[in-house]
Amino acid sequence: MSELAQRPGAHGRADAAVTDRRLVRGARARRTIARHAVDVASLDGLTGLSLGRLATDLGLSKSGIQTLFRTKENLQLAAVESAGEQFTDAVVRPAGDAPRGAARLRALTEHWIGYAETPLFAGGCFWAANLADFDSRPGPVRDALFRGHRDWLCVLAGELRHAAGEGEIADVDADLAAFQIDAVLMAANTALRLGDHGAVAKVRRVIEGLLAPPR
Amino acid sequence: MSELAQRPGAHGRADAAVTDRRLVRGARARRTIARHAVDVASLDGLTGLSLGRLATDLGLSKSGIQTLFRTKENLQLAAVESAGEQFTDAVVRPAGDAPRGAARLRALTEHWIGYAETPLFAGGCFWAANLADFDSRPGPVRDALFRGHRDWLCVLAGELRHAAGEGEIADVDADLAAFQIDAVLMAANTALRLGDHGAVAKVRRVIEGLLAPPR
Repeated sequence: MSELAQRPGAHGRADAAVTDRRLVRGARARRTIARHAVDVASLDGLTGLSLGRLATDLGLSKSGIQTLFRTKENLQLAAVESAGEQFTDAVVRPAGDAPRGAARLRALTEHWIGYAETPLFAGGCFWAANLADFDSRPGPVRDALFRGHRDWLCVLAGELRHAAGEGEIADVDADLAAFQIDAVLMAANTALRLGDHGAVAKVRRVIEGLLAPPR
Repeated sequence: MSELAQRPGAHGRADAAVTDRRLVRGARARRTIARHAVDVASLDGLTGLSLGRLATDLGLSKSGIQTLFRTKENLQLAAVESAGEQFTDAVVRPAGDAPRGAARLRALTEHWIGYAETPLFAGGCFWAANLADFDSRPGPVRDALFRGHRDWLCVLAGELRHAAGEGEIADVDADLAAFQIDAVLMAANTALRLGDHGAVAKVRRVIEGLLAPPR
């Protein structure tokens, strides 16, 4: 056995440190690339993503991006995950400051309107752009988009149930009301992108109708 | 002057007949190609259309399609026009059998659900697939999609106004209610494509809520 091989501990630590640094750099690069992928996908759809395009946009080598993501599908999945994190940070987390129930639903709606009006993503709502695009393409990307959307519906329904349970609003079918709220938010996103800013007032009126106090 | 040139009348008639036949054949070919373009666009979006792809799909020469449409944008506009005609035939026209007002709104909704459940177009609702895709791309195609969507909202609002005017339903803001109906129909289209058939029952309940008789 050589001397080097007899000191696995010291080398192991050094190797681990190098590996750690590489992992951190890799994770950071993955995050940067995934974020840009979200912007591209909010404009041109997840199908418009390609490793080559991202390399050109970000001034990176295509082989570097290929090493990090391997396939277009992995890149699409990373974009969906990144979009979900950014959406949570922009809409769900800040609404957590409001008390649960009707107040938090109003806060979620207002943060959502902000998200659609001053787009977090270059092309507006990431889910509106991609759910409609991927709904006819079964596979892991569609499943990931579907899960993200379902989680959002669950957040809305949970607050509606809380509001009804506390007697703040009339007894509602929470899933039906969540479906309605999500539907008008998606419609408002499209209307906003087409320059119809009256849609925001319509959304607020629908929400207030659903949050009317019990008689 | 030659003898031929001295008889413009006879030649003119023969030329006109040839031209007429060519125009008819051209119009029929345009219609067939535009219909297929709608199917492709309902699945892959209008951006997924190309003259070459349609030529391959339909077993035609690319130069023949190029002669008829010249540009990809013309082909996209022809697809939007064809989708509008097919939508009118499948949803708006048959609902015309029902009396104006609440009954016609229910008929429009049921025909729309049929349109989304047993898709007229391979990928489900053409507008759901393309409005979200084109909302960030200003230009004539976006304008045509927007007009088609606005016409549909006007049909809904017109029947709501009629129903309220006749005292069939409570006094409503017709534009707001049309926005809501369209929003839940669009959301149901996405849900159906993702295999969630419960969305149809949700749509019917929202519509019945909006069509409740005055108290």
